[in-house]
Amino acid sequence: MRLMEGIDVLVSEVGPRDGLQSIDRVMPTAAKLAWIDALAAAGVREIEVGSFVPARLLPQLADTGEVVRAIKARHPALHVAVLVPNAKGAEAAIAAGADKLTLPLSASETHSLKNLRRTHAQLFEEVARIVDLLSALPDGKRPQFEGAISTAFGCTLEGEVPDARVVALAEKLVALGCDEVGLSDTSGYANPAQVRRLVRAVHDAIGPGRMTGLHLHNTRGLGLANVVAGLEVGITTFDSSQGGLGGCPFAPGASGNIVTEDLVFMLESMGLRTGIDLAPLMVARRFLADALPGEPLYGFMPDAGLPLGFRAAA
Amino acid sequence: MRLMEGIDVLVSEVGPRDGLQSIDRVMPTAAKLAWIDALAAAGVREIEVGSFVPARLLPQLADTGEVVRAIKARHPALHVAVLVPNAKGAEAAIAAGADKLTLPLSASETHSLKNLRRTHAQLFEEVARIVDLLSALPDGKRPQFEGAISTAFGCTLEGEVPDARVVALAEKLVALGCDEVGLSDTSGYANPAQVRRLVRAVHDAIGPGRMTGLHLHNTRGLGLANVVAGLEVGITTFDSSQGGLGGCPFAPGASGNIVTEDLVFMLESMGLRTGIDLAPLMVARRFLADALPGEPLYGFMPDAGLPLGFRAAA
Repeated sequence: MRLMEGIDVLVSEVGPRDGLQSIDRVMPTAAKLAWIDALAAAGVREIEVGSFVPARLLPQLADTGEVVRAIKARHPALHVAVLVPNAKGAEAAIAAGADKLTLPLSASETHSLKNLRRTHAQLFEEVARIVDLLSALPDGKRPQFEGAISTAFGCTLEGEVPDARVVALAEKLVALGCDEVGLSDTSGYANPAQVRRLVRAVHDAIGPGRMTGLHLHNTRGLGLANVVAGLEVGITTFDSSQGGLGGCPFAPGASGNIVTEDLVFMLESMGLRTGIDLAPLMVARRFLADALPGEPLYGFMPDAGLPLGFRAAA
Repeated sequence: MRLMEGIDVLVSEVGPRDGLQSIDRVMPTAAKLAWIDALAAAGVREIEVGSFVPARLLPQLADTGEVVRAIKARHPALHVAVLVPNAKGAEAAIAAGADKLTLPLSASETHSLKNLRRTHAQLFEEVARIVDLLSALPDGKRPQFEGAISTAFGCTLEGEVPDARVVALAEKLVALGCDEVGLSDTSGYANPAQVRRLVRAVHDAIGPGRMTGLHLHNTRGLGLANVVAGLEVGITTFDSSQGGLGGCPFAPGASGNIVTEDLVFMLESMGLRTGIDLAPLMVARRFLADALPGEPLYGFMPDAGLPLGFRAAA
């Protein structure tokens, strides 16, 4: 997305959606709001707060509408993102006042059927319906619409995913009217050379302005290495999850978003402004830990602490 | 160092030295030899097998001479590296038949006094003595001599280390006759932008051919991200420790070399040939685990496994 004033890289927090959907426990709405408040207080600019999927599929996110309304009321400037699996979800997201709708579409059709219970063709129809819904809205009221290509770097069910398939899906999503396309390493398969190669290929096909975000996992420890590769090819938005909470419950073994604390530490160390302060970010981590006692939280910086003399990006 | 035939990046295993010196237990010589045999069988080309320091300081490495002799006898083609704190250690290393001598010199003089009990001036004298020793040897018998600048990216005792100091030390070491200079992130303080900047500065000062290696730690989770940055600026040798065993016992909190298994996985995924096969590398990990029951071993790839359809570099 377009970067806000004063930041070089947008760290998009997905813990309240990707993190919480991957654990069995349901975090009470009040605790979610307190955690999101703390994240916003740390300077996080964009937060994916939930997903408009049927409650029977993801009871952890059944309160997404309520969360969107409450957070927009409390933090008007915060960019509130939600996942929408279809036009029905998009209607609910629009009604709740979300700033960004993300429709996931898996490059692996096997994974798509398991994850979203839809073929590519069925998802294209949903995308078209959502674009119609959005075009009926007045300019100021129209949320951003992203098509997120999951398993873009490989799939635990299909293995290698050809670049050409990802590029074709990106072109199709833009042709259908998505504002943006994102690439997700759902399975933690990506490597830095592949990130450079695939991002460049997608940029060549749809233009760099249409693909600015990566959703990376740290399943095999390459998450931040892939961020470095993404930065080199012009990526300016990275999803991450506080404490590394989360992953994809439908892709076996594919746990672990990159850790927000480590990502912000790396970017700020590199002189890239995220707008996020690490001290209050650690306070937000405490809210998360207190709300989910015993839930494993990850991250190296939280354990090792900041380097002596550390300075955030000026 | 000069790369061997058929590999693009040299992964220099330092576990038997850096790893073992950081734990209290002493691994029996026979177990060390079995582990090193397994590493060599996996295709590891260079292994730092010990350090010629007084046994009272590091009893874990008291058998270094014996290990060097045994390994050279068993694996003539293996590049056997050792740490030498002074000329006395270098004499012993030469007598044992080591292929590479590395003398550590800390950019932070505070750290240098704690770690090596020497000022920079005293260490320069040792370097000069070692160069004399080496120049007396016939060409074929002369081991490679590297000056390794530790805490080059920051120090837990002094904080920020100015690039200019590292560059000046590199120039001094080359002027004294070191074949090569290496940079070590002893404290796990490095970030990718700093790696690019400092490596370029040292290359500008002494020439890229004199500085090809980085010794990185993963203390704050940036180890492999820093490898990606190093690759971009022409680094071709990376130290790592199997299972992430190790660190610097004299730099509080600075534990954790980058993990050999994850490093090799990343490099091979990127199409960079290391000459190391991952399956037998995991066998070597088992030798290590069996020799040190209960010792924590790290690594993401060992937990998550290889991606479906993974192919090593051709």
